[in-house]
Amino acid sequence: VVETRDGTIAVASAFPGHQEAVQDRDHKFLSKAVEEAYKGVDCGHGGPFGAVVVRNDEVIVGCHNMVLNNTDPTAHAEVTAIREACKKLGKIELSDCEMYASCEPCPMCFGAVHLSRIKVHPLPYHSSSGTIWFIESLINNLVECCNAEAGVRSQGGSCYCHWIRRLHC
Amino acid sequence: VVETRDGTIAVASAFPGHQEAVQDRDHKFLSKAVEEAYKGVDCGHGGPFGAVVVRNDEVIVGCHNMVLNNTDPTAHAEVTAIREACKKLGKIELSDCEMYASCEPCPMCFGAVHLSRIKVHPLPYHSSSGTIWFIESLINNLVECCNAEAGVRSQGGSCYCHWIRRLHC
Repeated sequence: VVETRDGTIAVASAFPGHQEAVQDRDHKFLSKAVEEAYKGVDCGHGGPFGAVVVRNDEVIVGCHNMVLNNTDPTAHAEVTAIREACKKLGKIELSDCEMYASCEPCPMCFGAVHLSRIKVHPLPYHSSSGTIWFIESLINNLVECCNAEAGVRSQGGSCYCHWIRRLHC
Repeated sequence: VVETRDGTIAVASAFPGHQEAVQDRDHKFLSKAVEEAYKGVDCGHGGPFGAVVVRNDEVIVGCHNMVLNNTDPTAHAEVTAIREACKKLGKIELSDCEMYASCEPCPMCFGAVHLSRIKVHPLPYHSSSGTIWFIESLINNLVECCNAEAGVRSQGGSCYCHWIRRLHC
């Protein structure tokens, strides 16, 4: 436990390098979510979004947006991942699981996350997107795509470019 | 067009009895949604919620909560009805359809309604439930159930009692 300059108390990392290990783990699973987004675009299954459900450091399911393939507007990556994980684990609540998503979930997906009790780690494209709708998120992401930062954050952005290019082929 | 006492302009009904006809229509489809809720409870498929999708005065699908049956926390009546209607009509947007639901949709279902562009006519249990979560809605509905009004509104409430009785059998 460390007292910081402004008088607040902070809990130090459990061991040296703990923070880096957490970042590496997050990076690994977020990258898998972005990979899923690419896979979905390549298959023409729907929009450029991916999500993975993780339990005890093991990927339970990896899914992407299936809206077009399933003719189902509710088949977003996150909803699909929750449904598949519940089916695989044989239960309707996922409080012992985490979700990594390639984009901040839309309100429908936030609702599904809440109902399933899963913890979510979205790739943070837009700080206030918890309250915005899918289409606004998409526009913001496209804008961000043009100014993408290095690393996994830009991978998600690039996936939009990849999608847009495919749509125009 | 009629000017009212406070100076505002109101549009008169298209023909005498128009308002009653609209109410009869709403009552008919809301009753079907409540019937679905009962059916779901009787089958043990999930919570006491039903929804129907209507196009040109024809019921396209009637669904109930399938959460337990499908081991799927997203299988609320409204989401299930949207999925089934899209499958049946072969398209992902339902702007030419209306949904009648036995309860005000939870945030996930509101999201699904928004994404599918369907118009929704919920049975209004709780005036502010657009922002509340499923479980709060359930509690409110259980309270309302004890003070249920006459007609279709109380049918929805009674369905909760029916559900609770079954849970305790």
